[in-house]
Amino acid sequence: MSKSRIRIGMVGGGETAFIGAVHRIAMRIDDAFELVAGALDAEPARGRRFAATLGIAPERAYDSYLDMLAAEAARADGIEAVAIVTPNFLHFPVAKAALEAGLHVICEKPMTVTLEEAEELAALVQASGKQFFLTHTYTGYPMIRQMREMVAAGEIGTLRRVEAEYLQDWLAAPVERTGAEGAVWRTDPKKAGAGGAIGDVGTHAYNLAAFVTGLEPDELLAELSAFVEGRRVDDDAAILMRYAGGAKGSILASQVLPGNGNNLSLRVYGDKGGLEWRQEAPEELWFTRLGEARQMLRRNGAGATGAAVAGSRVPAAHPEGYLEAFANLYRDAARAISGQTEGALVPGAPEGVAGLRFVEACLTSAQAGAVWVPLRP
Amino acid sequence: MSKSRIRIGMVGGGETAFIGAVHRIAMRIDDAFELVAGALDAEPARGRRFAATLGIAPERAYDSYLDMLAAEAARADGIEAVAIVTPNFLHFPVAKAALEAGLHVICEKPMTVTLEEAEELAALVQASGKQFFLTHTYTGYPMIRQMREMVAAGEIGTLRRVEAEYLQDWLAAPVERTGAEGAVWRTDPKKAGAGGAIGDVGTHAYNLAAFVTGLEPDELLAELSAFVEGRRVDDDAAILMRYAGGAKGSILASQVLPGNGNNLSLRVYGDKGGLEWRQEAPEELWFTRLGEARQMLRRNGAGATGAAVAGSRVPAAHPEGYLEAFANLYRDAARAISGQTEGALVPGAPEGVAGLRFVEACLTSAQAGAVWVPLRP
Amino acid sequence: MSKSRIRIGMVGGGETAFIGAVHRIAMRIDDAFELVAGALDAEPARGRRFAATLGIAPERAYDSYLDMLAAEAARADGIEAVAIVTPNFLHFPVAKAALEAGLHVICEKPMTVTLEEAEELAALVQASGKQFFLTHTYTGYPMIRQMREMVAAGEIGTLRRVEAEYLQDWLAAPVERTGAEGAVWRTDPKKAGAGGAIGDVGTHAYNLAAFVTGLEPDELLAELSAFVEGRRVDDDAAILMRYAGGAKGSILASQVLPGNGNNLSLRVYGDKGGLEWRQEAPEELWFTRLGEARQMLRRNGAGATGAAVAGSRVPAAHPEGYLEAFANLYRDAARAISGQTEGALVPGAPEGVAGLRFVEACLTSAQAGAVWVPLRP
Amino acid sequence: MSKSRIRIGMVGGGETAFIGAVHRIAMRIDDAFELVAGALDAEPARGRRFAATLGIAPERAYDSYLDMLAAEAARADGIEAVAIVTPNFLHFPVAKAALEAGLHVICEKPMTVTLEEAEELAALVQASGKQFFLTHTYTGYPMIRQMREMVAAGEIGTLRRVEAEYLQDWLAAPVERTGAEGAVWRTDPKKAGAGGAIGDVGTHAYNLAAFVTGLEPDELLAELSAFVEGRRVDDDAAILMRYAGGAKGSILASQVLPGNGNNLSLRVYGDKGGLEWRQEAPEELWFTRLGEARQMLRRNGAGATGAAVAGSRVPAAHPEGYLEAFANLYRDAARAISGQTEGALVPGAPEGVAGLRFVEACLTSAQAGAVWVPLRP
Repeated sequence: MSKSRIRIGMVGGGETAFIGAVHRIAMRIDDAFELVAGALDAEPARGRRFAATLGIAPERAYDSYLDMLAAEAARADGIEAVAIVTPNFLHFPVAKAALEAGLHVICEKPMTVTLEEAEELAALVQASGKQFFLTHTYTGYPMIRQMREMVAAGEIGTLRRVEAEYLQDWLAAPVERTGAEGAVWRTDPKKAGAGGAIGDVGTHAYNLAAFVTGLEPDELLAELSAFVEGRRVDDDAAILMRYAGGAKGSILASQVLPGNGNNLSLRVYGDKGGLEWRQEAPEELWFTRLGEARQMLRRNGAGATGAAVAGSRVPAAHPEGYLEAFANLYRDAARAISGQTEGALVPGAPEGVAGLRFVEACLTSAQAGAVWVPLRP
Repeated sequence: MSKSRIRIGMVGGGETAFIGAVHRIAMRIDDAFELVAGALDAEPARGRRFAATLGIAPERAYDSYLDMLAAEAARADGIEAVAIVTPNFLHFPVAKAALEAGLHVICEKPMTVTLEEAEELAALVQASGKQFFLTHTYTGYPMIRQMREMVAAGEIGTLRRVEAEYLQDWLAAPVERTGAEGAVWRTDPKKAGAGGAIGDVGTHAYNLAAFVTGLEPDELLAELSAFVEGRRVDDDAAILMRYAGGAKGSILASQVLPGNGNNLSLRVYGDKGGLEWRQEAPEELWFTRLGEARQMLRRNGAGATGAAVAGSRVPAAHPEGYLEAFANLYRDAARAISGQTEGALVPGAPEGVAGLRFVEACLTSAQAGAVWVPLRP
Repeated sequence: MSKSRIRIGMVGGGETAFIGAVHRIAMRIDDAFELVAGALDAEPARGRRFAATLGIAPERAYDSYLDMLAAEAARADGIEAVAIVTPNFLHFPVAKAALEAGLHVICEKPMTVTLEEAEELAALVQASGKQFFLTHTYTGYPMIRQMREMVAAGEIGTLRRVEAEYLQDWLAAPVERTGAEGAVWRTDPKKAGAGGAIGDVGTHAYNLAAFVTGLEPDELLAELSAFVEGRRVDDDAAILMRYAGGAKGSILASQVLPGNGNNLSLRVYGDKGGLEWRQEAPEELWFTRLGEARQMLRRNGAGATGAAVAGSRVPAAHPEGYLEAFANLYRDAARAISGQTEGALVPGAPEGVAGLRFVEACLTSAQAGAVWVPLRP
Repeated sequence: MSKSRIRIGMVGGGETAFIGAVHRIAMRIDDAFELVAGALDAEPARGRRFAATLGIAPERAYDSYLDMLAAEAARADGIEAVAIVTPNFLHFPVAKAALEAGLHVICEKPMTVTLEEAEELAALVQASGKQFFLTHTYTGYPMIRQMREMVAAGEIGTLRRVEAEYLQDWLAAPVERTGAEGAVWRTDPKKAGAGGAIGDVGTHAYNLAAFVTGLEPDELLAELSAFVEGRRVDDDAAILMRYAGGAKGSILASQVLPGNGNNLSLRVYGDKGGLEWRQEAPEELWFTRLGEARQMLRRNGAGATGAAVAGSRVPAAHPEGYLEAFANLYRDAARAISGQTEGALVPGAPEGVAGLRFVEACLTSAQAGAVWVPLRP
């Protein structure tokens, strides 16, 4: 087999954007994509300068995503896919235009800013026959995929309780007032969506719980707070979940709790066992069968399941991390685009819709004083 | 100063009872009490046999607590205090009788089975002039006391979020059907009270959060579940808290989550810092000032506060544990009884009432479908 | 069975001595001893005052251990055993006199200051028919006892490597110059013995390795250092061990390494598995079978061996610690004195002799420039 | 600045080789190299097939490294550097030929199989004016670089003790007999060099200690063992170090201790503080100032030093790992090759020579029965 990489263009991801760089590294790790075009920056000149440093040919560094889609469509070697790493409010129009241009889409979460947009986009994906991937990074961790496989295999029995937390502290002070990177648009409901912490990190936690357990939500109740004075969106959310079939859960999402860096965790308990994982020590998965000793499973080590082995590049105890988890999403996307797999593990449009539905349900619940509201597909 | 120990009698705590033995060891560690009398067992003969092995004189091994109170009152060297370690439903009558007999009371939690009883008992304590101590064990841990002092000193600023969990797995299967030690009465609403996990472990978590933060509760919402088929009380509880002043909190209490032994934890976050503690590693207190590195404070080590030093018997890094935490309650009780301190750190009647009020509010909330209910003194 | 406690007297252990208080608490936890006499302090008046606070009758608070032994021998209710908690150089004369007075002895380590004394004392124990217990505290930890039983049961196969460390930092600065508690005599070769760290903490590590593995030493090599200027004894020791049968080992003992509180650890590896334990988290024992996941065994939890269960007072996950480990030594001693057990797990005279032989071999090796020297019984 | 990548060829690193894949990912992460040529496999046809999957043009997939060097020299766009990822015994001839062909060299460790070769190669590097990089992976970890900067800045004072361990268990059984990947040549003295564990992992530990502390070795003593029957090289090594200036150290290197995956650790203690790091949790660096609480420093977090920030791609608490550490070596190499930095942090020829000198000293010591031997530059 000789090498054939998927040609991709990027929208957003300029020099100072954290997540754009992450996407580019993730593409390169397994070398299945070739970044050949970009509309990287709201300031075109700056975007072109930066594109050059990335090895993008000058004529393929575009002033806008619309320019890019038009020009690339006209090339024989035009892009096959688009990576969208803009602020949230642009996800919808860019993805829509890309799909309409016949391209596959790899999109940062959240899929869109409103549920209405998400549903429209999902329908468009369905109709387009193109692939849509939503980079819920944490689903790329091998031990998360192992957790999913172990749950599905019945290793912990009938599920009882699902506890997901995503705690940070970088918004603990009113950093948006000082113009801090990322904080300004993330706390602006127009640019980020009506949900603050609930959208930015809560959706990751919600998605991860769903990815691992496969449980269908039934109802939720959300208590949203804005602890920092003057903040226009929630920065802290405590959510109770009721799942179809009787399992219960909590999601705690906050960006204002000092001492928490990127403290995402997931604990799942059934009648036969329990599984516990923390993003800050992602190589370890604690597994306990009821009545037995706790076991520390390691990526690619003893007891590794198929997805965990497949998602590993190096042997156990040679730590892989966040970038490799991200690279797993790109690798899966490449395989799916190439038709090599029936179904990728990467979240897609249905998960994107589910995320927005979750955010809207949380807002509905919170506005009514934190009451139970339905959350059904 | 020569030695003068407080003479104490015990009610309950027979040979197979776990908590009775714990109380006796806790008394002995600092040698401030002398166990001289007991009505240890519902089966008098068995209780007398066991009393002999504890060094209790035969004539002071009583058939019932009423006998004990009467006979001891008649002795010049009669008991000065009573330790109550019976199943929950006996706490009230025994404590009442003991107070009426002019004795100090050291009572296992919960104070009583109903709020009404608790309030009656609290009034009686007030009127009696005697001391009443409620052995919420975990308040005896030096790092919990340090946490309290650090919060009070403003080390973490204005409180935002209080997360308390108390997770176990010993009731994960229907062990009450096989007559397992402690499981039978604990899952019998008549003997344990209407709350199951909420009463047995939830009250510890609630008490600990209150002890450490000093926050006044305002409202709560409780989602109670009985995951084990046929169980007559809740075995799992997820509670959201709203505190006066705007802080928020969660309490998760469960006895059916595999892999959790005695997993009580408390995390408290303010606008300036965070504190995190786990009962299974009780010597460590994680402290982070916003923007600084995480610090691991150790009992009696660098940065130890007064209460933590006072609650220590051995140097840092020579682990103290559960029994020493318990002993701190007895030591404090002894000092208070002896008039050596103005106020002990040991919870008393007000905390007992607060615990029952919490349980009743949880039940009220749950019965209405998990809605917000007031929780005010 | 009615209560009958062993009457014991204490030598040393005055008000400011750390280890005396530990022995007294350890006695009380299981209530098998009654402290009725003492020669607690080199300053008799201070010792008598302190004895009163311990509940020792005034006439049994003696000015010297010789007085105590003589007077108690004359009493019908005289002491049956002596606890020796003096500085090291007094262990030998006090133990000798006590044995000659027909008493059992519970002695702090090291057994004596020289090997010659230790051998003389061991012979005396043998001849006396009395019991001699050496309080190598760490052998009392349930998980250490479980480790020993697992090794003996072949759980990790043929032993390859034994790594013991005992690291502290309390002598990292020249605290003996400022008269700090315990530092003055411990750094005085006349009072502590020629070995510094090697005697004070190295012997614990050596003893623990021997206790757990049962391996016979063959040769050792010791590199001793005194890092603090002006210090008269070693404060840091790195030792290589060769065991009969081919296993290898290291012992690292130091009191001058910042960040180490009481960091004793033991790791034992065989051809089939490995076991790892740390004193600062003494409830956990890591066990790995070759090719399987790491397991975290807990005291009194799943997989607990007989000795670990027997050495536990409370259920798994209710932390026991240093004082309970110490209490296990006293409990075992009481049983052995009472003839209830064939053999106690507590180290005795042979282990005391072995400890001194180890120290002398280390000094011999070090003085010759850190060369291999034999270490055989 | 537009993109200009360094053209590189690879020798070794065929389809089944672990380390070749690691080098290729490491190159791609920061995209500073372009892999354009290769002699990847001892079986040329297999190597060519594999080269195609890597995107190497067919005419640049060579049958041997000699072919590659000759052909590339003749191209205008020929390679500028060579990555050597063969079994150890080929490092020397390939590196020599590459340098003579005027190419920069990035070479797996060990530099060569014998000290004599290493010294010859170092002289050649010196004379060539080309850059030589030795991929001691672990020096690429940001927290190791931070540790080095903190030591150099005097944060822990005058060094006392340096403890390095590198423990694995993948050779715990005689896997070389079953032809296991990597085990056959690594246990063959002709292909791997006379040192087994001492060369394979011991040199990493030795290098890491030197990298972090900057201490000059003075003498060492090595106890080498082959625990697995029939093994022709050592599989376990315990080494004592004496450094110029009086610091002491140990290196423990073993590949036969069950439960150890890739357990490399480094602890460095001075008179003012201590630093502790473990490769399996590489994002954390424990730092204690004498008398203060332990602090957990995180990559790119509070207190990060310049090199740690520079070596990070993502924010603190988004774990980076082994591949990013490796990528840091390549990134540094690229900068050095491009003349953008005065000196790279990547080890080079002097460290390669030091590694071989260390191995030879260990063998000399061990053959004489584990005695002290000099180890000086």
